Amino acid sequence: MGQLLRVQNFTVSRDGFGAGEDQSLERPFGHADPGELFVWAGATASWPMRTEPGGSRGLDDYITRDYDRNIGAEIMGRNKFSPLRGPWADESWTGWWGDEPPFRTPVFVLTHHPRPSFSLGETTFHFVDGDPASVLERAKEAARGKDVRLGGGATTIREFLDADLVDTLHVAVSQVELGHGVRLWKSPDELRDRFEVDVVPSRSGVTHHFFWRK
Amino acid sequence: MGQLLRVQNFTVSRDGFGAGEDQSLERPFGHADPGELFVWAGATASWPMRTEPGGSRGLDDYITRDYDRNIGAEIMGRNKFSPLRGPWADESWTGWWGDEPPFRTPVFVLTHHPRPSFSLGETTFHFVDGDPASVLERAKEAARGKDVRLGGGATTIREFLDADLVDTLHVAVSQVELGHGVRLWKSPDELRDRFEVDVVPSRSGVTHHFFWRK
Repeated sequence: MGQLLRVQNFTVSRDGFGAGEDQSLERPFGHADPGELFVWAGATASWPMRTEPGGSRGLDDYITRDYDRNIGAEIMGRNKFSPLRGPWADESWTGWWGDEPPFRTPVFVLTHHPRPSFSLGETTFHFVDGDPASVLERAKEAARGKDVRLGGGATTIREFLDADLVDTLHVAVSQVELGHGVRLWKSPDELRDRFEVDVVPSRSGVTHHFFWRK
Repeated sequence: MGQLLRVQNFTVSRDGFGAGEDQSLERPFGHADPGELFVWAGATASWPMRTEPGGSRGLDDYITRDYDRNIGAEIMGRNKFSPLRGPWADESWTGWWGDEPPFRTPVFVLTHHPRPSFSLGETTFHFVDGDPASVLERAKEAARGKDVRLGGGATTIREFLDADLVDTLHVAVSQVELGHGVRLWKSPDELRDRFEVDVVPSRSGVTHHFFWRK
């Protein structure tokens, strides 16, 4: 089937927002509380950021443990990488993830303000300016035959959906209401013209939406 | 957390049977129709026996694509390997799976009638006589740090459950009724004393049961 572009473990509020407003260094998700949005994932045994043993191994864990299966590269938006806007004042910002980012592949950060690539642990960040199709082409080449993860945020996912480049999309719809923020959709039904969908409630409180191309 | 013993993609009838009666060369599942039992898995993009492109990529596919993730060995019962009973008349029987069995790891076949190990494609079959704990110990050693899959059938899974050696168990409960056959359980509720469980209906018609140790 060739290389897929996959969205995985992307969590939105019940009203369709992937993050709140007013992102800052202290609040990567703006007024949204990431602990509340991602509680379903953090409770699983396979959550990539887990540091303690334990965790659930049911439905939600199937999803978090699929995070890196056959993934060879990630594409993310500038705002997932950094709270900074505009030209890079300096290059000291290296992401939110400490010395061992969980990606462990090449990562392509979309930005109009390129800067040199750098590596941190097993992850290499590249900064690219281009339309979705050309960035995807670069990421697929870097992925060496494996799939590419589209890491978000919501604006970036929208751009790739609008360009019809997304093959599979997993979105966990939380019960949290945000009211405003960075919108993924008004309703998951917007994607039903192009995608098949499985809608699966989890006892953790989120409702998983699994989309794949018709 | 160490190495897990995992049951995956094991399908039973609504009344709790993993296979029918009167297994034979022509009817590996006895009077049960495997096409009917496994239709949920066969429809997915990641079903290990799939030969054609296509297939669904929703809930059921998360499960079939987890089949070989971090698996380093399999344990199976004699009746999963072969319809023959008693001492091996000869050693020409090499399983149901053709020249490329889907396991691609060492496989330990439980039998009171040992025969020499052999390799087929990327799979090596070993024939072992022993109690579940000692066979599991051998399989874990062969798995080199990865998990061990307990491949069935129902009788073998029961033996390992009774010895309290199973860490996670995924069973797809089909809508098919068999009436009689090789029983896994009377009801999935039997396992609730020792296991947490997520019960997740799929639109393919099966209800997935994901168990993990309390």
